[in-house]
Amino acid sequence: MLCWYMYLKNFFQENGEKFMGPDIETLIQKISRLPGLGPRSARRIVIHMIRNREISLEPLLLSMSRVFENVKTCPICGNIDVFEDICSICSDRTRRNDLICVVESVSDLWAIERTSCFCGQYHVLGGLLSSIEGKGPEVLMLDKLIHRCNTNGVAEIIVALSATVEGQTTDHYIKNFFAQREIKATSLAHGIPIGGELDYLDDGTLFAAFSARG
Amino acid sequence: MLCWYMYLKNFFQENGEKFMGPDIETLIQKISRLPGLGPRSARRIVIHMIRNREISLEPLLLSMSRVFENVKTCPICGNIDVFEDICSICSDRTRRNDLICVVESVSDLWAIERTSCFCGQYHVLGGLLSSIEGKGPEVLMLDKLIHRCNTNGVAEIIVALSATVEGQTTDHYIKNFFAQREIKATSLAHGIPIGGELDYLDDGTLFAAFSARG
Repeated sequence: MLCWYMYLKNFFQENGEKFMGPDIETLIQKISRLPGLGPRSARRIVIHMIRNREISLEPLLLSMSRVFENVKTCPICGNIDVFEDICSICSDRTRRNDLICVVESVSDLWAIERTSCFCGQYHVLGGLLSSIEGKGPEVLMLDKLIHRCNTNGVAEIIVALSATVEGQTTDHYIKNFFAQREIKATSLAHGIPIGGELDYLDDGTLFAAFSARG
Repeated sequence: MLCWYMYLKNFFQENGEKFMGPDIETLIQKISRLPGLGPRSARRIVIHMIRNREISLEPLLLSMSRVFENVKTCPICGNIDVFEDICSICSDRTRRNDLICVVESVSDLWAIERTSCFCGQYHVLGGLLSSIEGKGPEVLMLDKLIHRCNTNGVAEIIVALSATVEGQTTDHYIKNFFAQREIKATSLAHGIPIGGELDYLDDGTLFAAFSARG
């Protein structure tokens, strides 16, 4: 009976860990709120950092304060980086500035840059259209993009959004928006991912791969 | 062919991400070395922190520097906390000091404290016997524990170690060590975990539960 009592008490109790100091408790709480982490992994990380104070906690602290002080958002494309006026991609003269790739977030921009397959400029939307979350076209900051297109004489807009419902709705909206203004807008292809086996693909992907065969 | 080339290049290339500033890259590398995290989750965390600079990055930075400056290891039990001379558990007069629980690490100490089922003192081993890693009895700091036993007149040592090969080897060694010195040493019980179904238990646990029935 005692066992069950302890089990249930532990299961329902609040996460106030009174046996450790408030400093450690606060740090664990803050780390557990980061994306992908929970109280258990946060405790593990905090113990690792305290045990390796000189080689883990101190360099991390320095590195975080440098990022906190120096990193800002590029006023042109919305990328985040350390720069003076505009980010390294916008100021790179070797990149084509008549080609703009529209991405949802900075992590998507980084993913495309890792492949080195695109040598134009970017426009980070910072969100997608979503009727559930009440996000309309105003979140996409398309006016800024239109202004860039008119100033630089853009030849093509590449819409690189996720193949989710929100992603595809936004893709459709943006392509329609630019079609009305007679600017060419294309999207990424849908099909079998490289390394993917036919047998394990979902119906939607197979259908898209058949439709866009060539 | 280009697809495969890009795929393989990306697969084998080093993780130098030249399109982002060195500050962000360093922070991602440092976070990806924390236990349980990798480059992908580190990138996600860094973007979250930069996007929520005031509510995530700044408080985390403050909290980490407080822990970095204030937290130390208790000279008596090996617990880590913020304290003057000895930790809050060792200095707590309401706890029994004739009962010492031997644990492997501070995270095990925290796990036991969360259940509130133990009201004695602790001894953190900081490691286990392991012939593979070449760790002998000297890592366990049992001399310090024997000294505490002799000074405080300890009634019982509770060995609370994991039910792994290293844990049980160490458990056996410590119990034997104290038996020779005529100090009572007990271990945690092995059996069916609370909420566990017989059908899904492994043979070792079922065998242990049968052997220790009562």
